[in-house]
Amino acid sequence: MIPIYTVEEAEKSILIRKPIVDVSLPPQINKRIVELFGELLTPLEVVRKIINDVIEKGDRALIEWTWKLDKFNIGDNIEVKSELLESALKSIDDEVKEALISARDRIIAFHRKQPLSSWTTEELGGSLGQIINPIRRVGFYIPGGSAPLPSTVIHSVSPAIVAGVEEIVIVSPPPISSIILATCNIMRALHAKIRVLQIGGVQAIAALAYGTESVPRVNKIIGPGNIFVTLAKREVFGIVGIDGIAGPTEAVIFADESANPELIASDLLAQAEHDYLAIPIIMTTSQDLANKVKTSIEEQILDLPRSKIAEHAIKNNGGIIVVPNTERAISVINNFAPEHLSIVTKNPKQLLPLIKNSGGIFLGESSCEVLGDYIAGPSHVMPTGGAAKFSSPLSVLDFIKITSLISLDRKTVKSIAPLAEILACNEELQAHSEAARRRAK
Amino acid sequence: MIPIYTVEEAEKSILIRKPIVDVSLPPQINKRIVELFGELLTPLEVVRKIINDVIEKGDRALIEWTWKLDKFNIGDNIEVKSELLESALKSIDDEVKEALISARDRIIAFHRKQPLSSWTTEELGGSLGQIINPIRRVGFYIPGGSAPLPSTVIHSVSPAIVAGVEEIVIVSPPPISSIILATCNIMRALHAKIRVLQIGGVQAIAALAYGTESVPRVNKIIGPGNIFVTLAKREVFGIVGIDGIAGPTEAVIFADESANPELIASDLLAQAEHDYLAIPIIMTTSQDLANKVKTSIEEQILDLPRSKIAEHAIKNNGGIIVVPNTERAISVINNFAPEHLSIVTKNPKQLLPLIKNSGGIFLGESSCEVLGDYIAGPSHVMPTGGAAKFSSPLSVLDFIKITSLISLDRKTVKSIAPLAEILACNEELQAHSEAARRRAK
Repeated sequence: MIPIYTVEEAEKSILIRKPIVDVSLPPQINKRIVELFGELLTPLEVVRKIINDVIEKGDRALIEWTWKLDKFNIGDNIEVKSELLESALKSIDDEVKEALISARDRIIAFHRKQPLSSWTTEELGGSLGQIINPIRRVGFYIPGGSAPLPSTVIHSVSPAIVAGVEEIVIVSPPPISSIILATCNIMRALHAKIRVLQIGGVQAIAALAYGTESVPRVNKIIGPGNIFVTLAKREVFGIVGIDGIAGPTEAVIFADESANPELIASDLLAQAEHDYLAIPIIMTTSQDLANKVKTSIEEQILDLPRSKIAEHAIKNNGGIIVVPNTERAISVINNFAPEHLSIVTKNPKQLLPLIKNSGGIFLGESSCEVLGDYIAGPSHVMPTGGAAKFSSPLSVLDFIKITSLISLDRKTVKSIAPLAEILACNEELQAHSEAARRRAK
Repeated sequence: MIPIYTVEEAEKSILIRKPIVDVSLPPQINKRIVELFGELLTPLEVVRKIINDVIEKGDRALIEWTWKLDKFNIGDNIEVKSELLESALKSIDDEVKEALISARDRIIAFHRKQPLSSWTTEELGGSLGQIINPIRRVGFYIPGGSAPLPSTVIHSVSPAIVAGVEEIVIVSPPPISSIILATCNIMRALHAKIRVLQIGGVQAIAALAYGTESVPRVNKIIGPGNIFVTLAKREVFGIVGIDGIAGPTEAVIFADESANPELIASDLLAQAEHDYLAIPIIMTTSQDLANKVKTSIEEQILDLPRSKIAEHAIKNNGGIIVVPNTERAISVINNFAPEHLSIVTKNPKQLLPLIKNSGGIFLGESSCEVLGDYIAGPSHVMPTGGAAKFSSPLSVLDFIKITSLISLDRKTVKSIAPLAEILACNEELQAHSEAARRRAK
């Protein structure tokens, strides 16, 4: 049942990603679109209609779309009241509560180590530098659905708190589960201005980008969502900042013959159970390990409540790749740029400098991805779809921005203004040249 | 002729920005669209058609669109040959060449100071941290047109060189002026792998994002362009990284009664001459200064070759705002989040901590924006359209990405794995919980 590929086969199949925003919708969604809009619209058309509706009608649009799409009447309760957050926290098990707090504290502690501060240099004449300020107000999209992920609240909001973001607005489609509300309250213990709004989908993204009577306009929107949410984020990009285009979760585990096949199988299944689109890949130089992992997956999967999802993901999007040697494996990894990479070899540290593109690297058998998903320290929000080639895991950097400081001394101005004058003349910008000339005096 | 506003008037007019991507096209462009496509398409439809054409036909599409849109036959010469870059450099004045080199060297020197390095902490058990790697291949879009801006080549490419980007691909619509080619060659002196391609518009963005026979696929695209280029960048965002959505250039000069009105007027005109959409604003607490600046602008503008553009920009998009006090001015600035802010007051440093949103801050009468445009040190590519609320000037940061490192020690794994197990159970992810449980042993 579990496919084992050669690297050549894999490069023609599972290592090719489908573009995230070009998916075709299942028939039942298209049927729903026709019901809602009276005609079959593309996802982008749906997104634009809802965004424009929110711009025009504000809260009223939020109430209507939440009723139509989430079958939930939010009425005047777009914002979740403090008391509800507190009672949600009281309703969860102490054990879970304490685990959430420990996770929060480690994620916060890790991000406090991220070195980021304003700086100036006097070496270029006067004071030049970069001033770092937090982004003032940030919106977080927390997906709803059948399996709520409180860890996502912790892993998204923590770096923002460390960065000093003044106001945090969390949105999630109703009804928001108690565990998500409780986790919001756990984050609120560290930050006075966290608000939780029970809206989701395109309407929530539009409300965050443009503001409504009840929803404050934010400066940046963070968080994953379905195809509609993703397209909506891309539409409002520029009006607000966004964190990126999130696709299905991915893991590549690179193991040699020294690895424990049961642990590898277990980690692969953890990746595979996420959703039908999840990409779980094992790459190994050992045919023997490949066979043992395959057997162990087939055994372990029987016990899983989400075995159907896991099986689908492994069969369709992932599998086991046998590579001829480590060099080839490294080149596959750098080309694929996985969201998560686990290295389970005799001396994993040795390979570290060779990895150029990966969201996160998990070194050795103990540091499995699941620990990173919950509690290790770095945010579990990492670049998917090959974006690790040009973007980074969520970190304090995503919540600050730089202002360049230019405060030159007179002597330096006198020496460089004539050069600026020459360059401005050359660009045929006379007023620029004149402004420089007046400083050269 | 130069408008003087109260702050209330300004907040209802010049301080409101039009969305960058929602512009309506002038009739002659629409006519051209009908000629080219046989029907009137929206800008986004035009963009998608050209992108798909490049994906399908590669180089052939580049040659065809360059012929149709730029009236230029690039034939087999998509890439500009080395010899041409070298002869372009020889063809420019020594004075200009030396000024370009000085500018390059200062921009490079400034960005070398930007503190950015991999780090790890041992404080959370084992080794956790962030590994910094340069983005491997980056494309730069340099607009063509009647007034080529070689400074943009220097200010865009320099931070990439400092970051250690391996391959740099510069695109610009043909015919590329000698001065741009010469400047590319000046940058090439510092970096072995800089290629220059004579393609522009949507077709160049598509080629950089998807690759063709002659154009290597890049990981990120940097640089401003017209509405079509901007939309194309947004379309390919996710496939590659992009730097942001660039709008018209903006400057706010905040001055008190101590400022020299002629210098202020001169700086405003430098901003205003950029293009018809440029936003040049003076804000002052002094009615007297406002009047004097107005008079000086009206005098100085007469001598400018680009006086028509400058006049249009000042009258339609900018002007002079008289504010009742400094507090009000600061609040206007933070709300507007200008690309450039000059502070020309008795004690400009005092105001620095109050500015939260601005691309660059130019302190005092000597450090005028024009010096920053060419030679001061920070990149002149700064966030426009209010994006300074959530994004930063171009810097080394734009050319690196982080990989999170998770290498926990056994003791830590044993202590946190049970917590991960609890959280996974709570999220109903059985395989996650199992993977954690196996590590708790």
